[in-house]
Amino acid sequence: MDDDALALLRLLDAGGASAPRRRLLERCGTPAQALAAGEHAWREAGLVGAQVRALGADTGATACVRDWLAKPGHRLIGWHDPDYPALLRRIQSPPLALFSAGDANLLWHPAVAVVGTRAPTAGGRDHAREFALAIARAGFAVCSGLAAGIDTAAHLAALAGDGATIAVLGSGVDVPYPRANAGLHRDIEARGLVVSEHPPGTAARREHFPARNRIIAGLALGTVVIEAAQRSGALITARLAADAGREVFAVPGSIRNPLARGCHRLIRDGATLVEAADEVTAALAPVAQSLADALRRRLQAPICDPAGASAVPVGAPRQDDPDYQRLWSAIGHDPSPMDQLLERTGLTTAELSSMLLVMELDGRIVLEHGRYYRKS
Amino acid sequence: MDDDALALLRLLDAGGASAPRRRLLERCGTPAQALAAGEHAWREAGLVGAQVRALGADTGATACVRDWLAKPGHRLIGWHDPDYPALLRRIQSPPLALFSAGDANLLWHPAVAVVGTRAPTAGGRDHAREFALAIARAGFAVCSGLAAGIDTAAHLAALAGDGATIAVLGSGVDVPYPRANAGLHRDIEARGLVVSEHPPGTAARREHFPARNRIIAGLALGTVVIEAAQRSGALITARLAADAGREVFAVPGSIRNPLARGCHRLIRDGATLVEAADEVTAALAPVAQSLADALRRRLQAPICDPAGASAVPVGAPRQDDPDYQRLWSAIGHDPSPMDQLLERTGLTTAELSSMLLVMELDGRIVLEHGRYYRKS
Repeated sequence: MDDDALALLRLLDAGGASAPRRRLLERCGTPAQALAAGEHAWREAGLVGAQVRALGADTGATACVRDWLAKPGHRLIGWHDPDYPALLRRIQSPPLALFSAGDANLLWHPAVAVVGTRAPTAGGRDHAREFALAIARAGFAVCSGLAAGIDTAAHLAALAGDGATIAVLGSGVDVPYPRANAGLHRDIEARGLVVSEHPPGTAARREHFPARNRIIAGLALGTVVIEAAQRSGALITARLAADAGREVFAVPGSIRNPLARGCHRLIRDGATLVEAADEVTAALAPVAQSLADALRRRLQAPICDPAGASAVPVGAPRQDDPDYQRLWSAIGHDPSPMDQLLERTGLTTAELSSMLLVMELDGRIVLEHGRYYRKS
Repeated sequence: MDDDALALLRLLDAGGASAPRRRLLERCGTPAQALAAGEHAWREAGLVGAQVRALGADTGATACVRDWLAKPGHRLIGWHDPDYPALLRRIQSPPLALFSAGDANLLWHPAVAVVGTRAPTAGGRDHAREFALAIARAGFAVCSGLAAGIDTAAHLAALAGDGATIAVLGSGVDVPYPRANAGLHRDIEARGLVVSEHPPGTAARREHFPARNRIIAGLALGTVVIEAAQRSGALITARLAADAGREVFAVPGSIRNPLARGCHRLIRDGATLVEAADEVTAALAPVAQSLADALRRRLQAPICDPAGASAVPVGAPRQDDPDYQRLWSAIGHDPSPMDQLLERTGLTTAELSSMLLVMELDGRIVLEHGRYYRKS
């Protein structure tokens, strides 16, 4: 186990607000350097007293976590790590690190979240299966929360279709919750990916779930809500997805079905009404393509390398695309929220989202607290 | 039977485009004067050769229509008539005249159109009943087309709730269509209102129905679509309602129900998703109130009377309402479509629609071909 992993565990153990710790990592480059930087640097990054004290004292509480990390297929991916998923980096409060068990490459695979109630109708369960299977067959990973009901149906259908699936837990990555899904948890670890921001061994706690939902929404290009009550975790996931500028899809239902109410509410609030999975995959295909293109460009010509063979000058809009020009002039040096950019450009959410993603990966713009601005 | 009624029947018989005949009526004031104005005036109003020839020759084809009109409760209301319904006057192609049988006062009653497929599911029929009953109980007239299925369920429920209902026919007002609804037709004539733009005796023809739908949409403050296939008359009615600046409501359904598709399409295109009738009546109450207020003001102080005691100077925005001021400055002397005004003012469709209605009834603005402009 290397120094960075040990230092990152210390940073995680320090607890409290994660923004100062992300800032510290950004300033110092690596967890080991962050830990070595000392109290003055920690305080300058915004760490408060309790965090500074925790970071100063080696609690040694990470022994079982070290054992877990030593096993094959287990990883800890920190904010400083180039493997930290690009899409998750863009949400309002990204986790400081992710524990992952299984195929960590899936973190960079275009994913769609399929979520909903823990107690669906028979019809809702069927819809979850159909949507997840079609989404997986279209080449997207199906991301969900391993919960009973819609989540379970979605993971199972993705596995049944030999597709990729990601389970995001509110417990430690090695703690299946609910217990009844222990078998499914094992299958997903073996054939997909299980992730959590909590250290191995952490029990499921009610207050973890809304935070868990931000990771589900953050890893996915879009979120599909199948059946959901008026107040439910699925609606939280959908709102977090919308806040992060991701497309939200909702499946309508009979006005007699109380579990259609949450979806109807989302539709009234601007989510896209979908009747079939191909509407989801068609809407997300251009975003997925942009993501793939941007990653390819970035790998070929890192923007931090001035000698790089990038075809597009960093910071300049493409001369040949009027939409990009329009967006570039709409983005100023003052941070603008997504809504404002939508209004200024007249683009659709999907178009805007994919263009912003590319510009951000190209290093032309910065996303901070849900607002975009020019880098230079 | 007076000269105006006879002259109006002659104008109707002339056939062809109705805009020139409406123009002729506006220029001459009454049908008798329009008929007496002679060929030169007819041509100046835009009547084409065939219309001029037909108007010149007294065909006498109106004998049975004269008999029908002589009976109690039967009326012919022309474009020149102050009883011509205000809301219908504002659609893109208003009929030159309406034949009515029953309580003609209902033409000025706030109405909601309830429409849908001729072959609903059992659930759809239930929804039609529930919505129509609640809408009627909230004091709105239920307007529909006397067709089988949703229309029939809506009319029946309104009558069952002792509410007001208006049937708009694609045949003559005395020709029940479909035949199976002859009893319902009689009931609506006795306890509500039956109207048609076609002279009594006219058989139902397929091509009459889309035109009939514009009257259903035009008489109503809003249109509710219960169940409708992807291509259907109900969707035409909904689009005509939207074109006329009226609110469109659609009831969602299971993605397994092919008759929910039309509603889902409307929702995607901007119709309001509704789960219950009170959402419809709540959305339309302010518009109905504005309509009532404007009518009261108009009756108290006719705008053509310069000595009238109108509290609001004609042509001037109300000083005390920022929304009105915003709208007044958004409306120029160049005609603007509804969309543009929505964009310029940031008002909701319901707010804008009610304010435009009031301004129009107050004589401050003019609606022509779906575009609004200042009168002075």
